[in-house]
Amino acid sequence: MKLHWSPRSPFVRKVMICAHELDLAGRIDKVRTMVRMTEPNAALLADNPLSKIPTLVLDDGTTIFDSLTICEYLDHLAGGGKLFPRDPKSRFLALTRHALANGLLDMLILWRNERDKPPGRQTQAWLDSFAIKLRATLARLEGEAALRRKAQFDIGDVATGCALAYLDFRFPDTGWREGHDELAAWHAEFAARPSARATEIVDA
Amino acid sequence: MKLHWSPRSPFVRKVMICAHELDLAGRIDKVRTMVRMTEPNAALLADNPLSKIPTLVLDDGTTIFDSLTICEYLDHLAGGGKLFPRDPKSRFLALTRHALANGLLDMLILWRNERDKPPGRQTQAWLDSFAIKLRATLARLEGEAALRRKAQFDIGDVATGCALAYLDFRFPDTGWREGHDELAAWHAEFAARPSARATEIVDA
Repeated sequence: MKLHWSPRSPFVRKVMICAHELDLAGRIDKVRTMVRMTEPNAALLADNPLSKIPTLVLDDGTTIFDSLTICEYLDHLAGGGKLFPRDPKSRFLALTRHALANGLLDMLILWRNERDKPPGRQTQAWLDSFAIKLRATLARLEGEAALRRKAQFDIGDVATGCALAYLDFRFPDTGWREGHDELAAWHAEFAARPSARATEIVDA
Repeated sequence: MKLHWSPRSPFVRKVMICAHELDLAGRIDKVRTMVRMTEPNAALLADNPLSKIPTLVLDDGTTIFDSLTICEYLDHLAGGGKLFPRDPKSRFLALTRHALANGLLDMLILWRNERDKPPGRQTQAWLDSFAIKLRATLARLEGEAALRRKAQFDIGDVATGCALAYLDFRFPDTGWREGHDELAAWHAEFAARPSARATEIVDA
């Protein structure tokens, strides 16, 4: 199977962390695919009309996206119930924690787009709003972090780790660890996993 | 259970269509919750740190989001396998079709935000890129529409219907039906379903 891939996308990283956790990375043929918000990628458009990565293409040509769908597909290939709990209560908690971290990533990307515009074209109310939501999200994650350190690693943790690492990568000045000791400790454990180390996002 | 709800959100509509299809609408206590990109809602932040709707709050205080997670939770309450196929092949196709329609909605909302800025603050390359992706998405949907008219209604159809209806509501001048006869016919059937009629988005 072929994966439209980039070394910098936190959404691609989610998929590759799942692949490593599930021992499937060797079956994925990574194709480097550049995407920019200002410029759809013609080759990618044929597989995914929204020109978004990650997009998975199976050997029979079937396309699977977005990142969450690909992650669940990989979990299914590995037998199911590994990173996507089968028990409903655990499953919906994991999916909600995934949605929180993934929504944080969506927001960080909008924030970066807005922040990098010329000052006269920025919308200050958006920037303020992003900061409020980031604080609220970090508070929620801090409250759950001690429990998560003892829990089975799941898709919610994959997304949370990727979102915090992206925050370090693109917003290095936020100092998010301050006042969030449990979350910082959780993230250090995440970052030490072989799947996280194998997929780390670094400046080229 | 309580749902942070608004009559205009296409993501809330997805949830309410599922609730009607699954005969669960009577169990949902809708709480009107205003959200703006420029102004997080304080009451909502406590349940969802990203201040996004829909957010579901169970009677024991557990919160469930985003819209896809809530839709799957409702399907689970109704016994499972109704709008989320159990067969893996059908399931991943449905989830990918959901991701396409939901990604289209995400894009239309960004497009509207950008379009409604003062002309000097718009980024033309974004507007052009949105138009290319919309064309590619409509072409893909047109190709699948004849098959979908004969298939079991699922979460991919719910999202597709909501996205096309949102296009009609917020982008009435696109004329998307032109050149997309099968899709227009599919959408007319969608719009006639009791669940779609009960949740139609109209100007107040």
